[in-house]
Amino acid sequence: MRPFTNLIPYEEALKILLDNVKPVERWEKVSLEDALHRVLAEDIISPINVPPFSRAAEDGYAVRAEDTYGAGQYSPRELQSIGEINTGEYKPLKIKKGECVRIATGAMLPEGADAVVRAEDTEDNEGMVKIYRPVHPGFDVAPVGEDIKKGEKIFTKGTYLTPSKIGALAAMGIIEIKVYEKPKVAVLPSGDELVKPGDSLPPGKIYDVNTYTIASVIRENGGVPVIFPYVMDSPADIEEKLLKAMKYDLIVFSGGSSVGDRDLLIDVVSKHAKILFHGVQIKPGKPTWCAVGKRMILGMPGFPTSCLSDSYQFLAPALRKMAKLPPKDRKTIKARMSRRIVSTLGRTQFFTVRIKDNVAYPAYKTSGAITSMANSDGYIIIPHNVDIVERNEEVTVYLWGD
Amino acid sequence: MRPFTNLIPYEEALKILLDNVKPVERWEKVSLEDALHRVLAEDIISPINVPPFSRAAEDGYAVRAEDTYGAGQYSPRELQSIGEINTGEYKPLKIKKGECVRIATGAMLPEGADAVVRAEDTEDNEGMVKIYRPVHPGFDVAPVGEDIKKGEKIFTKGTYLTPSKIGALAAMGIIEIKVYEKPKVAVLPSGDELVKPGDSLPPGKIYDVNTYTIASVIRENGGVPVIFPYVMDSPADIEEKLLKAMKYDLIVFSGGSSVGDRDLLIDVVSKHAKILFHGVQIKPGKPTWCAVGKRMILGMPGFPTSCLSDSYQFLAPALRKMAKLPPKDRKTIKARMSRRIVSTLGRTQFFTVRIKDNVAYPAYKTSGAITSMANSDGYIIIPHNVDIVERNEEVTVYLWGD
Repeated sequence: MRPFTNLIPYEEALKILLDNVKPVERWEKVSLEDALHRVLAEDIISPINVPPFSRAAEDGYAVRAEDTYGAGQYSPRELQSIGEINTGEYKPLKIKKGECVRIATGAMLPEGADAVVRAEDTEDNEGMVKIYRPVHPGFDVAPVGEDIKKGEKIFTKGTYLTPSKIGALAAMGIIEIKVYEKPKVAVLPSGDELVKPGDSLPPGKIYDVNTYTIASVIRENGGVPVIFPYVMDSPADIEEKLLKAMKYDLIVFSGGSSVGDRDLLIDVVSKHAKILFHGVQIKPGKPTWCAVGKRMILGMPGFPTSCLSDSYQFLAPALRKMAKLPPKDRKTIKARMSRRIVSTLGRTQFFTVRIKDNVAYPAYKTSGAITSMANSDGYIIIPHNVDIVERNEEVTVYLWGD
Repeated sequence: MRPFTNLIPYEEALKILLDNVKPVERWEKVSLEDALHRVLAEDIISPINVPPFSRAAEDGYAVRAEDTYGAGQYSPRELQSIGEINTGEYKPLKIKKGECVRIATGAMLPEGADAVVRAEDTEDNEGMVKIYRPVHPGFDVAPVGEDIKKGEKIFTKGTYLTPSKIGALAAMGIIEIKVYEKPKVAVLPSGDELVKPGDSLPPGKIYDVNTYTIASVIRENGGVPVIFPYVMDSPADIEEKLLKAMKYDLIVFSGGSSVGDRDLLIDVVSKHAKILFHGVQIKPGKPTWCAVGKRMILGMPGFPTSCLSDSYQFLAPALRKMAKLPPKDRKTIKARMSRRIVSTLGRTQFFTVRIKDNVAYPAYKTSGAITSMANSDGYIIIPHNVDIVERNEEVTVYLWGD
């Protein structure tokens, strides 16, 4: 048996992984309807002014501001209305001294006008309009290009598209954009004991969990999972699937990484890639490994909870870098620990907890219990140099969220 | 012109909306691969034990614990190995007094065995195995049903499916589940001035923004947008589209709700639904209205930033209730205000800001500027009874996230 000889700290392992994964630079065109949460692969230069014309910001009358000077409650100016412009309409009206045009909010200002008098400050008497309030040039007018100027660079390559950014693209009339392709991740759960959920379960076998949890975490972090058939514990099968997986952007194994004489995976991978680390000072997740060849390869434990914890601690940040997504802003809360927790010096522990009334209760049921994780609200991180978290001690809980 | 006579506070408006929207009770069957972020429409009773059999938690030898009693570094017990069981294998082995079986982590314990001695505490000499350490019954054994018991209720109806919950379903062998259907939301932007992005822009027209922002917020909150053609400013067109929209779970109008003589929307809607409120003490979003008929109808302003702000403040929480999703856990940070902000007493203001070095800068560029919102990191809420936020005052910023 080969022991883990070179366990490295979590921070170092994560850094090695992140330093070695490459962002996907391929792009594709998508319609604005499909662009939410994607990442721009081009700078966006506005092809138009927004608004595309000077428009009224209120319902009222478009005027030449100077025609209103001196107007007051008891000394209205009178202007001749020469027409009406509704929102969305174009009329080739032109106002001259002493004239005005009835205008709706958002409608295009007629030529000659430089301000709007609100309807409530006017009185229309068969086309002769009393103006009770003076306005300065530009009053209640949204000038052409006020929001976005034609030719202005609005977004740069790498911008993550949220609803408001989608809105800005629409405002510029852009319906199709270049976005980076999502990283494709080959998911290779290994183990002769695995059976696909839904199939019948022969004695000695268990249902595959990791395919589904890994695929879920990949989807939550901007990737596309490509699910492989189970990898059997034979060098030929491992090699065949590894080589097939090399065409994807990242390769993720789960299982087959414990230290034991049936451990073949690392040996086969070593023939095609350089092992960067094997063994991390974390709990769960000690047997985690990482290799780089034609592609990056991440090896996660077969134990479902260890695999899922690894998916959050390694796979998610690696994938977000590959997908050029901003880091996940996981919400944290402060809580008091319900009881003393003993950890192992030299290992960073990710410890799942449930929260009730600001108290953190261990969610741990038994090693590898998927239900402990499924019923937890988040986890605390017990640093490698801490062996005891005292009862009532304040802890930071990272909520799963999503 | 009809003034807003009955502006109501934000909290009251939101409560009216939430009290009136109904969760969607229709369900559909989905495969586990498509179940992420969906909501269970059935209780889940486990059809099996997890693990389905007692299994070894370490590589080593399956033994009868009592055969190891008294073993020590200098007084090993010797047991006869009668075979080997690998992970995923079933062998009808049965161990008797004085016997053991070589076993791999995760493999099924043979009949008669009740504990595992780790490999490092043994020495195999051609089938005669020296045991250097005593173990108690159950040592390094994960007993059948330890994690999940057959017949146990694991999840209840209404559970939101995260990666770990997907994993627990897989562990039980469940590949297809009932989830609630996503609410279908009819999106009806109104206004004669709207042009679809990508089309050419005649004078007086502007590109439609609200369809894309509303649809994005709907997708982020578990709904399916159903985009309608633009509603023209005519009673016949409004009525025709309103009636068609009645088959969806929620109807959202944007635009056409300002107080002006071209305001037809409310009149037409009133014929088919009861107006619950029209006018809210918020900025932006004052002309927001809500009606209930065969379906709930939400009316949001046409101004893109007002519409988007409303989408977050009204549409998102309503939709999450309809989709039975947990409330959005928006991350907040504390920041100091870069300069004094003046607000309007009597109106709750949602004020967008950019964050740099823990200082909140107003993102506001100009009323309705979509770029202000697109370039903001989040917003602060200035309560209705506060008119001034001082420079350097601490504010809570709600980050857009996602």
